[in-house]
Amino acid sequence: MAHHIKFRVYYEDTDAGGIVYHARYLGFAERARAEALRELGLAIGELAEKENLGFVVANLSIHYHRPAKLDDVLEIETCLVEAKAARFILQQNIFTEVNSEKLHIASLKVELVSMAMDRLKPVRLPVEVKKRLEQLRTDN
Amino acid sequence: MAHHIKFRVYYEDTDAGGIVYHARYLGFAERARAEALRELGLAIGELAEKENLGFVVANLSIHYHRPAKLDDVLEIETCLVEAKAARFILQQNIFTEVNSEKLHIASLKVELVSMAMDRLKPVRLPVEVKKRLEQLRTDN
Amino acid sequence: MAHHIKFRVYYEDTDAGGIVYHARYLGFAERARAEALRELGLAIGELAEKENLGFVVANLSIHYHRPAKLDDVLEIETCLVEAKAARFILQQNIFTEVNSEKLHIASLKVELVSMAMDRLKPVRLPVEVKKRLEQLRTDN
Amino acid sequence: MAHHIKFRVYYEDTDAGGIVYHARYLGFAERARAEALRELGLAIGELAEKENLGFVVANLSIHYHRPAKLDDVLEIETCLVEAKAARFILQQNIFTEVNSEKLHIASLKVELVSMAMDRLKPVRLPVEVKKRLEQLRTDN
Repeated sequence: MAHHIKFRVYYEDTDAGGIVYHARYLGFAERARAEALRELGLAIGELAEKENLGFVVANLSIHYHRPAKLDDVLEIETCLVEAKAARFILQQNIFTEVNSEKLHIASLKVELVSMAMDRLKPVRLPVEVKKRLEQLRTDN
Repeated sequence: MAHHIKFRVYYEDTDAGGIVYHARYLGFAERARAEALRELGLAIGELAEKENLGFVVANLSIHYHRPAKLDDVLEIETCLVEAKAARFILQQNIFTEVNSEKLHIASLKVELVSMAMDRLKPVRLPVEVKKRLEQLRTDN
Repeated sequence: MAHHIKFRVYYEDTDAGGIVYHARYLGFAERARAEALRELGLAIGELAEKENLGFVVANLSIHYHRPAKLDDVLEIETCLVEAKAARFILQQNIFTEVNSEKLHIASLKVELVSMAMDRLKPVRLPVEVKKRLEQLRTDN
Repeated sequence: MAHHIKFRVYYEDTDAGGIVYHARYLGFAERARAEALRELGLAIGELAEKENLGFVVANLSIHYHRPAKLDDVLEIETCLVEAKAARFILQQNIFTEVNSEKLHIASLKVELVSMAMDRLKPVRLPVEVKKRLEQLRTDN
């Protein structure tokens, strides 16, 4: 099942074009991933501290469909596309609602690599972690 | 009465020192001010768009008491110190809780000037706005 | 010819993983685009103010090859892939140098849409602007 | 002698008010401190890695005199006010130039504490470091 969470847009997220700065969506998406993992019992701060495990972005693509603005509430949907030995791919969609209409703001595909954080070297996803990530699948 | 709100610390808020980057607290404090004003019926996006009114930071001081870290939940308390003709001063305190103990992370004093946003010139605080801000007082 | 520029990594660019925060590379790349355009006589602030013209990111993909760290000097190379009626695609590569060895940090492909900034509607690239962008081609 | 350095304002530094976001000046000031220290032979990345030494902001006050905008070049002046056993205070002024007129954008006073970075505990400033910092004095 996909994970959903909402974040509001503040001045810090906008730029002089009057809209959300394009790189800020990566920050919103990262917050959503952190909360999706936390809900699966995988708090990233704990994983880093206790298990020396982190997930580093290896590839990312983002399509911007329409701009979001100050005060908008962004809803971010996160689901698993694929989990391999040492990496997994998430699809994230960002929406907002204007006059009860749901608008698609942006969509991201993010590939994350499982890393030993002290050496920044790829390591296999622990079986238990992989099993939990599978809960973010929407296609079965 | 003081306004309270909580925000979590994500990777985007931290730096290579392993703690929250010092300038990020100004972002958290601004989010808290936006929500405090919204609760008083003063949504900043609407104020800017419909009334050409904005609140620009003129002076700010911040004392850092102890560092916050990844995954911490920050609680931000916002109250009014003083409201004058075209400016007002807020006191903001940032706390986190570790093992049921409330820790004081930082305290800010922020002076905001009421501005006509198209010309960026100071203007008097509308009576109704000032009246609402007074609800953030804690000393009476 | 490709445009080259260097920026240093400061604490603000890093995260608690001890490396540059993944979204920061989009900021570095945007700085490089701004300077590449400025060198072609296209200062983005002036374009926005005097000609109501801006370039908004429509699609972006980034591959992270290896992490950069605090104090690293990033060299960003920007070149034109393709210019169409109302949009153009840039390729950007980010390098750093460690012990006289040039390391590839990240590569981006960015598609920008030419916009009337007041209405945020796509407009044709002015002929003169398109001609100048063509100078960033490397394949002829 | 005071240290001087220039940085340009990009879209990432601005907000929907059309001006530089107030917290961004703390980022510009930190970049200037890093470069001022580097010029004294104190590269912060090296200090952290090799000597486990870092300088953490303990107190900061900033006065905003006038807004800076997209494309402005900010000049940041950094000088030492006082160096004590385990802390030092810097004064930083931010200027820009419009039509050959030097405009004062903001002024900061920043108190930094010398820290053992692994434990985040205050430590005395090494004699050699303190001696170098004294070169940033302007009053003698």
